[in-house]
Amino acid sequence: MSDLWSGRFGSGPDPRVRQFTSSLELDRRIAAHDLRGSIAHARMLGRQGIVPAAEADTLVAELERLAADLANGIWSLPADAEDVHTAVEQELRSRLGETGGKLHTARSRNDQIALDLRLFVLDLLDELDSSVRALGAKLLDEAERHVETVLPGYTHLQRAQPVSLAHHLLAHLEALLRDRERIAGARRRTAVSPLGAAALAGSPYPVDPDGVAAELGLHSRFTNSIDAVSDRDFVVEFVFISALVSVHASRLAEEIVLWSTSEFGFVDLPDAVATGSSIMPQKKNPDVAELVRGRAGRAIGDLVAVLTTLKGLPLAYGSDLQEQRVPLYDAAQIAPALDALSLMVGGFRADAMRRATDGGMLTATDLADHLAQRGVPFREAHAVVGRLVAQLTSSGRDLSHLTLEDLRRGHPSFEASALEEMGVERSLAARASPGGTAPERVREALTSAAERLRA
Amino acid sequence: MSDLWSGRFGSGPDPRVRQFTSSLELDRRIAAHDLRGSIAHARMLGRQGIVPAAEADTLVAELERLAADLANGIWSLPADAEDVHTAVEQELRSRLGETGGKLHTARSRNDQIALDLRLFVLDLLDELDSSVRALGAKLLDEAERHVETVLPGYTHLQRAQPVSLAHHLLAHLEALLRDRERIAGARRRTAVSPLGAAALAGSPYPVDPDGVAAELGLHSRFTNSIDAVSDRDFVVEFVFISALVSVHASRLAEEIVLWSTSEFGFVDLPDAVATGSSIMPQKKNPDVAELVRGRAGRAIGDLVAVLTTLKGLPLAYGSDLQEQRVPLYDAAQIAPALDALSLMVGGFRADAMRRATDGGMLTATDLADHLAQRGVPFREAHAVVGRLVAQLTSSGRDLSHLTLEDLRRGHPSFEASALEEMGVERSLAARASPGGTAPERVREALTSAAERLRA
Amino acid sequence: MSDLWSGRFGSGPDPRVRQFTSSLELDRRIAAHDLRGSIAHARMLGRQGIVPAAEADTLVAELERLAADLANGIWSLPADAEDVHTAVEQELRSRLGETGGKLHTARSRNDQIALDLRLFVLDLLDELDSSVRALGAKLLDEAERHVETVLPGYTHLQRAQPVSLAHHLLAHLEALLRDRERIAGARRRTAVSPLGAAALAGSPYPVDPDGVAAELGLHSRFTNSIDAVSDRDFVVEFVFISALVSVHASRLAEEIVLWSTSEFGFVDLPDAVATGSSIMPQKKNPDVAELVRGRAGRAIGDLVAVLTTLKGLPLAYGSDLQEQRVPLYDAAQIAPALDALSLMVGGFRADAMRRATDGGMLTATDLADHLAQRGVPFREAHAVVGRLVAQLTSSGRDLSHLTLEDLRRGHPSFEASALEEMGVERSLAARASPGGTAPERVREALTSAAERLRA
Amino acid sequence: MSDLWSGRFGSGPDPRVRQFTSSLELDRRIAAHDLRGSIAHARMLGRQGIVPAAEADTLVAELERLAADLANGIWSLPADAEDVHTAVEQELRSRLGETGGKLHTARSRNDQIALDLRLFVLDLLDELDSSVRALGAKLLDEAERHVETVLPGYTHLQRAQPVSLAHHLLAHLEALLRDRERIAGARRRTAVSPLGAAALAGSPYPVDPDGVAAELGLHSRFTNSIDAVSDRDFVVEFVFISALVSVHASRLAEEIVLWSTSEFGFVDLPDAVATGSSIMPQKKNPDVAELVRGRAGRAIGDLVAVLTTLKGLPLAYGSDLQEQRVPLYDAAQIAPALDALSLMVGGFRADAMRRATDGGMLTATDLADHLAQRGVPFREAHAVVGRLVAQLTSSGRDLSHLTLEDLRRGHPSFEASALEEMGVERSLAARASPGGTAPERVREALTSAAERLRA
Repeated sequence: MSDLWSGRFGSGPDPRVRQFTSSLELDRRIAAHDLRGSIAHARMLGRQGIVPAAEADTLVAELERLAADLANGIWSLPADAEDVHTAVEQELRSRLGETGGKLHTARSRNDQIALDLRLFVLDLLDELDSSVRALGAKLLDEAERHVETVLPGYTHLQRAQPVSLAHHLLAHLEALLRDRERIAGARRRTAVSPLGAAALAGSPYPVDPDGVAAELGLHSRFTNSIDAVSDRDFVVEFVFISALVSVHASRLAEEIVLWSTSEFGFVDLPDAVATGSSIMPQKKNPDVAELVRGRAGRAIGDLVAVLTTLKGLPLAYGSDLQEQRVPLYDAAQIAPALDALSLMVGGFRADAMRRATDGGMLTATDLADHLAQRGVPFREAHAVVGRLVAQLTSSGRDLSHLTLEDLRRGHPSFEASALEEMGVERSLAARASPGGTAPERVREALTSAAERLRA
Repeated sequence: MSDLWSGRFGSGPDPRVRQFTSSLELDRRIAAHDLRGSIAHARMLGRQGIVPAAEADTLVAELERLAADLANGIWSLPADAEDVHTAVEQELRSRLGETGGKLHTARSRNDQIALDLRLFVLDLLDELDSSVRALGAKLLDEAERHVETVLPGYTHLQRAQPVSLAHHLLAHLEALLRDRERIAGARRRTAVSPLGAAALAGSPYPVDPDGVAAELGLHSRFTNSIDAVSDRDFVVEFVFISALVSVHASRLAEEIVLWSTSEFGFVDLPDAVATGSSIMPQKKNPDVAELVRGRAGRAIGDLVAVLTTLKGLPLAYGSDLQEQRVPLYDAAQIAPALDALSLMVGGFRADAMRRATDGGMLTATDLADHLAQRGVPFREAHAVVGRLVAQLTSSGRDLSHLTLEDLRRGHPSFEASALEEMGVERSLAARASPGGTAPERVREALTSAAERLRA
Repeated sequence: MSDLWSGRFGSGPDPRVRQFTSSLELDRRIAAHDLRGSIAHARMLGRQGIVPAAEADTLVAELERLAADLANGIWSLPADAEDVHTAVEQELRSRLGETGGKLHTARSRNDQIALDLRLFVLDLLDELDSSVRALGAKLLDEAERHVETVLPGYTHLQRAQPVSLAHHLLAHLEALLRDRERIAGARRRTAVSPLGAAALAGSPYPVDPDGVAAELGLHSRFTNSIDAVSDRDFVVEFVFISALVSVHASRLAEEIVLWSTSEFGFVDLPDAVATGSSIMPQKKNPDVAELVRGRAGRAIGDLVAVLTTLKGLPLAYGSDLQEQRVPLYDAAQIAPALDALSLMVGGFRADAMRRATDGGMLTATDLADHLAQRGVPFREAHAVVGRLVAQLTSSGRDLSHLTLEDLRRGHPSFEASALEEMGVERSLAARASPGGTAPERVREALTSAAERLRA
Repeated sequence: MSDLWSGRFGSGPDPRVRQFTSSLELDRRIAAHDLRGSIAHARMLGRQGIVPAAEADTLVAELERLAADLANGIWSLPADAEDVHTAVEQELRSRLGETGGKLHTARSRNDQIALDLRLFVLDLLDELDSSVRALGAKLLDEAERHVETVLPGYTHLQRAQPVSLAHHLLAHLEALLRDRERIAGARRRTAVSPLGAAALAGSPYPVDPDGVAAELGLHSRFTNSIDAVSDRDFVVEFVFISALVSVHASRLAEEIVLWSTSEFGFVDLPDAVATGSSIMPQKKNPDVAELVRGRAGRAIGDLVAVLTTLKGLPLAYGSDLQEQRVPLYDAAQIAPALDALSLMVGGFRADAMRRATDGGMLTATDLADHLAQRGVPFREAHAVVGRLVAQLTSSGRDLSHLTLEDLRRGHPSFEASALEEMGVERSLAARASPGGTAPERVREALTSAAERLRA
């Protein structure tokens, strides 16, 4: 099949060069987007009189037929074409003859591929947003059922203070809500049509880039033709957001892995979301969560790839940009990872969480606060309680064994109410400051989160 | 110096552990921010009656004195403190006695460091924005003087079509304007106060996180206390934007390096921005541009570091987060790199650019368009001109040698006007489509860019 | 199809979980390696009497048939299997009945996948080595024809001193020779058999890991069973070497891009290795070199992925490791990139290189050396010549315009021979120190390089 | 202070350019290495008669004095010098007058900095090797005391099979032993002297690069002068090894974090290696392990930085290489991280480990093996035991509750010995295959590991 550019070339490319430089395989995923763009372009050519209206109509009709054929599997990109643009144009010429050769008027593959990729990335952003939202909805749903479920809040993976499971799940949701904000920002910057920039300098034809943008549902057209074909910020930004989302997912996945261990026992892994071992009959593995956690590593790698490819690249288009396609497609694997992770959120064992919260030292801070509220400088109060903890630990006891006398030996300002304040429920309810874990705060937070997730 | 937490510990840490875990050196850069946060916190403690008003006033006054002492170099962080929070509190206790020990009421180092970092990152965002804007202004300034300067536009680093130097410079500016939009988005997400989240669960004291946020000039407070101390998205996002800005800068830097070669000769490197060789007396090197280009590699590495550190980290705070500090500080080196690069923008040699544009094949597209405008399908027109180019090349000639007869031998539809349309000025002026390189379009673009840069 | 581990599971996995966790698609590339490993394992089972000899023979024969069927496309992995191990075992059971179920005795998928990957990575290392060697041979071949071809050596992309093109090409070859050394080191560390480690603890059967290793052509077996199933250093090391090789290739590719510009003109791009433009009829683009350069970005990303996936992973096997497969396969794309790049090495234009070397300031160092050899401190000599260069530049002249009088006005120690020493050939021949660019040194280097490349 | 290259420059650099391009701060760490190189160079200049012997002696003596002054803090790099090379030369000229200006004969800063960095990286490699070895020795030491300590071996962080703690610790040691092998390979490739390559083309003086190499304790000199000044593989390779070592350390660190949780309780964190909380008096945090784990993220980032900086850089020297210095120095922080981590290895609680091993399902594989050894195909045996496990789980029992009758209901081939084989010690001892966890194997492994670590 002859190339679009063979005029000045004495010979065609070496077959190994052709194979290496072809983007055909990569282009399969953007073929439908390419056709959408070509349809809008052909309409514009007719509207502006660049191509006679009748011929433009013919082009549009045939492109629409081709898009349907592609969707139905009747037509597919031939393996020997250089790229999707060539494949489409050649098919068009074989169907329409000379008229097919008019489609490429007033555009270049440079602005065309930029458009295809923008339309494609918009789809990816929407898909990612939808998966983020669904995972958020799952978290919210579980949170609603676990306002009163208490578990140890951890810092440094050491038990720190009692928290509501709902509060904990909503912490993950906050990260996802920020992600959605970032997706919206990227969407706005991506939905800009580059068509009309031509090779890099703009076009001598009376093209209508604004009209094309509008027809494609994009909010505006490019400002500078050189930038339009050189810019891949929208690719980088999508991959960045995917990487950050995947890092958020990996933090949740890590907790699912931890919580479903025998040691934590906070999650009872349903058979339906676990896998087994080929050799150890008793095993039940949190495979999905591990894969999601690992996938964050891939997404960070993808981000490095798209940034490094762009670094030091002179304007305008260079083929290095083609190498961004593999990491871009790979980053698109984060949305399905979120969907899979959603399946693993649940099976919480409130009893085990409660056991881990009781009978430890988790309300030691409440004791220090008790003193501080009685005028003891917090630093001194902290030291007093620290010494009490040390004594208990060395004798194998915990806070529940403390008597008022014990406390008073530590500091005379302790009052009897201290013993109650050490209770898990009291401790939880006490943290009623804005954004705190007290059930009343958490209930408000659920309402607010539901609203923001719906937005 | 004793630690803030030594109560329960039988012995202090091994000195090697102390040295390894201390964040003191890292904290020097955020000491002023820490004090700002503590002042707001102390005011709130008084306002809310958590600490007696008189004592709160004393704390505020002393903290302000300490901030001044720090700024004046009268006081600095002692080398043996564990971190800035400890250093400040200990200094306060040595100055104020028992009252100093009340500052840490109703907060934890977890929410405190999150606040310090947010205040610090806000400063970095502002600094970066200012440097991006300044580089943009320099590009705009040069562009205004070079609307009529013509150079070859390149794709694949091969001469493609004539473009206006102003148009080319404005392409770089577009990337910077997008960067500013991203900075603004990150700023909004960063300016959220985490103070009041305490260790992770919120506070039993009647704290006023909204008031603290307002006093610090932040637009809101955290929503979820666990998220407030676990979230480092604002660090990641700043480093990402720095990396992308640095990649944009590297593309400009690459062109400066190329353009100041003997081969291109498009830039005459002023002595004041070049460096020499210790052995080759004739050398003049574009050192600054190379360093800027290389620095993008560092920034991409920094991004990997902050993302990888966060990956798979269970909630809430973990010390891994401390390891983000080095890459964060390193990413802050992008702003000065932009400032340095600004110095290198200029010295353009319009004569050399013109020579490179003339006498080549850069207007071959115009010939193809000439045919297409006369009804020849663009694809056929392209092939016709391709063959003409091949003939010229094989005989060592270029487009300027073409006669109307030559053209007509290629295709009978060529008209005499084709010879004029091959002219560089005609070619440039013809690309008058929106966003194109025609001088009239570029003049409009200058106005628009100036407005957007000012915003 | 039922899983290998369904015994304890009440229900099969959710189809979405099955799809997400399946490694089937990824396993296609290692299916042949898996069969090789299974054959060696089955032989060992028979040899050691773990499975009756006759049954072991049956297993071996059928596995060999299966391997042939796979190679001939008669059999392929069924789409609904969990992974290659399951697919093979199930096929075996359907062909052999109960005997098929004995293959998995005394091994686990954990040691099995480790073996498959090691065999696969060994193939990748060999393929990479072969491509590195072929590119090296192409460089050597061109170098042999260009010992006397002179071009400007560059530092900071500024013309520095005349060098032989052969010398320049051999500089790239040195990097490749180092790469081969690294490949050999990695090969040694990869060729260790993990089979016999079973799930992680070793096996209660009288297995013979040494025998299996020997049969598979590996030089030894694992030392520690937990390490055997947890270790993926060999994956990381292969991807690292690929990344470094690709960076070396990118430096060569960058030069091909630069040298084939109109501005440098050092390379005449043959039609067979170039591509054209869909819109600009005159364009000839160094597509291959750009893709190779960009691909280095992908390889660096792949390296990040495999390292990040491994970070913080507790022993022993975890499913995160499965996520290394995509970046591993992607890194395998470096070998074909080198093959493609080989096609672009050549077409050097000695005339253009010579023109760029003459008539400039490239031998200014020789003038400084002239003075230094006459007792003038080099630092002073450098300054003298620097001033001469400045004078010439300001009057639009170059070194070839210098007279002995000019020189003597600069410094009285200049002798008449200085004028000759400024000649390009003299300058080149003078750099006859070991490893220098003098033609005699370069000829020796060619011999040495050929020997080392052959090794 | 005037630059080494000011001859041809009309003006000095803009102070902002000077500040931005200066490598002075970065050079402080290699100043001693620079002096070592200069001493060897000066000796060679005298030996070869390039500089009169007496002057060379003077240079050597003064350089040695300067090295002593630097070590004693009597002399340091002045803040206004461009770089270390300039600072040294200028100090030399101020001390020795004209003779000082002769040091830079027959070399360039390009080969000089390459030498400095190689000497520096050799030190870093030795330091890293020493820290890797020390951590290995600590692991070995603990392993020797814990051959009989049993804990659950994990896959997917689910309890899998009983293993010896010594065996587990030795698994980490294996990774470190591989690291030492890689360090040795990198050392060999780093210990090559580039001095004598001069700017890039070699030298017209009768230099003796082999002699210089020998004097500096390097095993050889460069082969190609252009490669000698362009190559930074040794930097990349050191940073890669650091990153991989840090990933290995992060896996151990992750286990220390897990094992010191309340939930696992396998490690009792000594006060001396833990840190506390400013607000929660009971907290004891595995700070060191978390920092080590996080630092792996930094090291991966450093690796990206040094690779990305090098990508696409044309030969020979370019200033981008200077930007590798920050990530190189940062990667040097891995050695101290290993030292800190060594302090945390220990405090193992054999009782808790034992409890986690008993009374679960960890020897289910032994039951399956029992059947397989009696002719039941392993796949069927696995299914039989899987069903037994499911029954036990659903009734809240574990393997210890099984009777022979239970077993025989599962499969008639079970014999009475099966009940014994389920015992933890039996299970452990049974895994006596090469490299397995049986105590006898582990004892052999300890001997072998000690030998290899000593090497």
